[in-house]
Amino acid sequence: MSDKLIIFDTTLRDGEQSPGASMTKDEKLRIARQLERLRVDVIEAGFAASSNGDFDAVKTIADHIKDSTVCSLSRANDRDISRAAEALAGANRGRIHTFIATSPLHMEKKLRMTPEQVFEQARQAVRFARNLCGDIEFSAEDGYRSDMDFLARVVEAVIAEGATTINIPDTVGYAIPELYGQFIRTLREKVPNSDKAIWSVHCHNDLGMAVANSLAGVKIGGARQVECTINGLGERAGNCSLEEVVMAVRTRRDHFGLEVGIDTSQIVPASRMVSQTTGFVVQPNKAVVGANAFAHASGIHQDGVLKARDTYEIMRAEDVGWSANKIVLGKLSGRNAFKQRLQELGIEMESEAEINAAFARFKDLADRKSEIFDEDIIALVGDESVTSEQEHYRLVALSQRSETGERPHAKVSFFVGAKEVTSEADGNGPVDASLKAIEAHVQSGAEMLLYSVNAITSGSTESQGEVTFRLQHGGRVVNGVGSDPDIVVASAKAYLAALNKLQGNVERTSAQW
Amino acid sequence: MSDKLIIFDTTLRDGEQSPGASMTKDEKLRIARQLERLRVDVIEAGFAASSNGDFDAVKTIADHIKDSTVCSLSRANDRDISRAAEALAGANRGRIHTFIATSPLHMEKKLRMTPEQVFEQARQAVRFARNLCGDIEFSAEDGYRSDMDFLARVVEAVIAEGATTINIPDTVGYAIPELYGQFIRTLREKVPNSDKAIWSVHCHNDLGMAVANSLAGVKIGGARQVECTINGLGERAGNCSLEEVVMAVRTRRDHFGLEVGIDTSQIVPASRMVSQTTGFVVQPNKAVVGANAFAHASGIHQDGVLKARDTYEIMRAEDVGWSANKIVLGKLSGRNAFKQRLQELGIEMESEAEINAAFARFKDLADRKSEIFDEDIIALVGDESVTSEQEHYRLVALSQRSETGERPHAKVSFFVGAKEVTSEADGNGPVDASLKAIEAHVQSGAEMLLYSVNAITSGSTESQGEVTFRLQHGGRVVNGVGSDPDIVVASAKAYLAALNKLQGNVERTSAQW
Repeated sequence: MSDKLIIFDTTLRDGEQSPGASMTKDEKLRIARQLERLRVDVIEAGFAASSNGDFDAVKTIADHIKDSTVCSLSRANDRDISRAAEALAGANRGRIHTFIATSPLHMEKKLRMTPEQVFEQARQAVRFARNLCGDIEFSAEDGYRSDMDFLARVVEAVIAEGATTINIPDTVGYAIPELYGQFIRTLREKVPNSDKAIWSVHCHNDLGMAVANSLAGVKIGGARQVECTINGLGERAGNCSLEEVVMAVRTRRDHFGLEVGIDTSQIVPASRMVSQTTGFVVQPNKAVVGANAFAHASGIHQDGVLKARDTYEIMRAEDVGWSANKIVLGKLSGRNAFKQRLQELGIEMESEAEINAAFARFKDLADRKSEIFDEDIIALVGDESVTSEQEHYRLVALSQRSETGERPHAKVSFFVGAKEVTSEADGNGPVDASLKAIEAHVQSGAEMLLYSVNAITSGSTESQGEVTFRLQHGGRVVNGVGSDPDIVVASAKAYLAALNKLQGNVERTSAQW
Repeated sequence: MSDKLIIFDTTLRDGEQSPGASMTKDEKLRIARQLERLRVDVIEAGFAASSNGDFDAVKTIADHIKDSTVCSLSRANDRDISRAAEALAGANRGRIHTFIATSPLHMEKKLRMTPEQVFEQARQAVRFARNLCGDIEFSAEDGYRSDMDFLARVVEAVIAEGATTINIPDTVGYAIPELYGQFIRTLREKVPNSDKAIWSVHCHNDLGMAVANSLAGVKIGGARQVECTINGLGERAGNCSLEEVVMAVRTRRDHFGLEVGIDTSQIVPASRMVSQTTGFVVQPNKAVVGANAFAHASGIHQDGVLKARDTYEIMRAEDVGWSANKIVLGKLSGRNAFKQRLQELGIEMESEAEINAAFARFKDLADRKSEIFDEDIIALVGDESVTSEQEHYRLVALSQRSETGERPHAKVSFFVGAKEVTSEADGNGPVDASLKAIEAHVQSGAEMLLYSVNAITSGSTESQGEVTFRLQHGGRVVNGVGSDPDIVVASAKAYLAALNKLQGNVERTSAQW
């Protein structure tokens, strides 16, 4: 068995399916580039057949990513598989990942198919895919709750048809480490041609054990691929966290004896990028990437903590990319210094026009905030107005006032397409008033599911606020993110960003695991 | 072996030691009452000898809690143990929890003691404690990294002296489930009198496996007590999450075959209370208590999700206390309706004066916010101004304005002790300006480590904002929390609350695990 553990990141597919985590094509490309810097082996870029937007995103990533294998999910049918192959045509290394459910519950309730029909469809799908691509992954959805003998038959058949990776997901997060590890092991023993494929695990975190289950699948079961996401993003309680599983294998190399190709110093930057893009906060007590995960990295310098560092810390913060905030640029920094810093941060821009737009925003920010940190730059670049995508709504100006005993009032000017409008309203607070002013004109009817603000840089009350709105309308859920030193302005930007996402066309097919 | 799994909650001790999570006595009592409603078996209320404040908190909780055992931590010396016994004197059921490190690294670097000295001190401490209390827990700090034979000798000795619970922590979060389970099992086999005590596990989450490790300690190792915290609060990446470990044992009863006494419908209320009190957010993709953990509880009603509910969800949201937001009260609600709702929410107030103060705040809120949800009431009660503690700083009034192209300005009036002051300042945004206005007078010199805002209730932009500031000064880290429909006002309240905490006397001894 190989001593290399393949890291398969599905932040852009399974993570992005999480309600509220949908991303634009440009956001996905930015994250894909960070995943490449992180040196993940396989990037699952999306589900090409689910919508035209997803197809474009997979294609764009396949065209730009050179080092990592780029993968597209597809259901087990010819149309889905053809679309996936088409989207991956430009990839250096492409993989088609086809799946079908094999558990009694899913076959009966979701697919309304007999086991024999599922067996045949799996086989035919892999046969079809194998003619389009040499790298084929097959997943048995809800595999862990499937009948072992039936599952073994299906797996044997798809390996015979040319599947090169076999993934056995714990779709609903029901597994216990020793049971799951043993399940994979027994299954491998039952499949006569099991050595012709790499075995993979894909665990959900509903009972908080996705990482331990994945590692049991590796250690006990013999799997050599782990499917995971940055920050454990994903539906419900999410997926196995990339940062945790990687650091566990590294820190406990004595136990696992496996190599991972990940550049761990890119973990924290990747975590921040995903959090800032999706608006999904990382809790302070999150392993590896939480603000408190390393006491001395959270800006706390109590005597005891420093003295006790070796006594209590089994990893080094530097190794996962925590570094002190550095003042990198200020209002006197020029375009070249800005461009160079972008390169150092690994941010690539498509065109000079994009760099110019980002630089203009940088100067605007530097006028109002004396110290510009790396996080500010990432946020600035993350702001959608510097991307190439069209914005229907765009903030022009905002004024607001509030006073104890009086009703807060806001006046907001913004573009609606090419037309500038100005609208005013009262509200419970300045944010509420600003949103009501926008809604007075837009009348989106969207329901707010979540509002949160985080300071992007610590150490100063001059920090930029980063606001996330999660809106729901017509069965769709979107997150809008906006940043500004003025929290009310950041809120208005985030709200308009969310409205822009609701505007976008998205009719997509969902593939749950 | 008993088929009951004892749930030992250490949110108020290990959780509260987390930098920024310190709580006032009243906050601790409120959480202890919620833990009692949750029916945890043991509440670790604090570390009585570490400060006078901690002593008071342990004593208050011991005096008020009737159903759960109340426990105090203490180092393995007579003074600590006496203080613990004194604080627990009023408890229905009290437990003294004494600990000493047993790993080579901790004995040498932290304790600067030989193994023989540690052995003797452990034995004497338990002997001393046993004369003061019938329920004695002994913990071998960094137990999992200790020499097995030495640890077995220590454990045998303390059981002989009368320790009734033996806890083997994975202090640094280094364990792997099967290794940890096997470690506990082998250790139990090596200790001749092992059946005279209940064995306990205490796992940290640095590699994301605290829950799986704890459960392996139970299933493989035979432990019958799990130490855990609400939301997995705790130093660095935190402790084993109570909600995850409890729901794993419930959901996989087929595997564990154990009973837990927890009223799971109190899990989500407990999670919210701890999050609101400490300002530690719960990420949306957190198992069991995250906003996305149950798709249909996050307000999302997509077709597929509802149809697929049984197919994808292994627990029911109702069972852990998720319920739709209910409009419970409005501006016409009277004092009796308010009081009744407090009772239904399980919130007990010490005096009529407290109820009156809370009701006044409720009316004030109802004037500005048409629909009052349960979360609003919990936040309102959580607001420190209704508690009996003295506040040095208190907000009176705030006015602010901002306008694109101009510098935001704020004017804040607040009490400093008995004196009202008014102060003005400009800033990068209205929040920054308000804080600068406060700082212009207070000049605390505190450094801001974290700023975050969450909407307390979803479904409306009229929601209250809940703001958390984390400040650091003079080696201390505090969180201040404030809520208001106006985010700028909530920010000023939170900032003053943090300053009040910095004002408080806290010189305490830290016990890390």
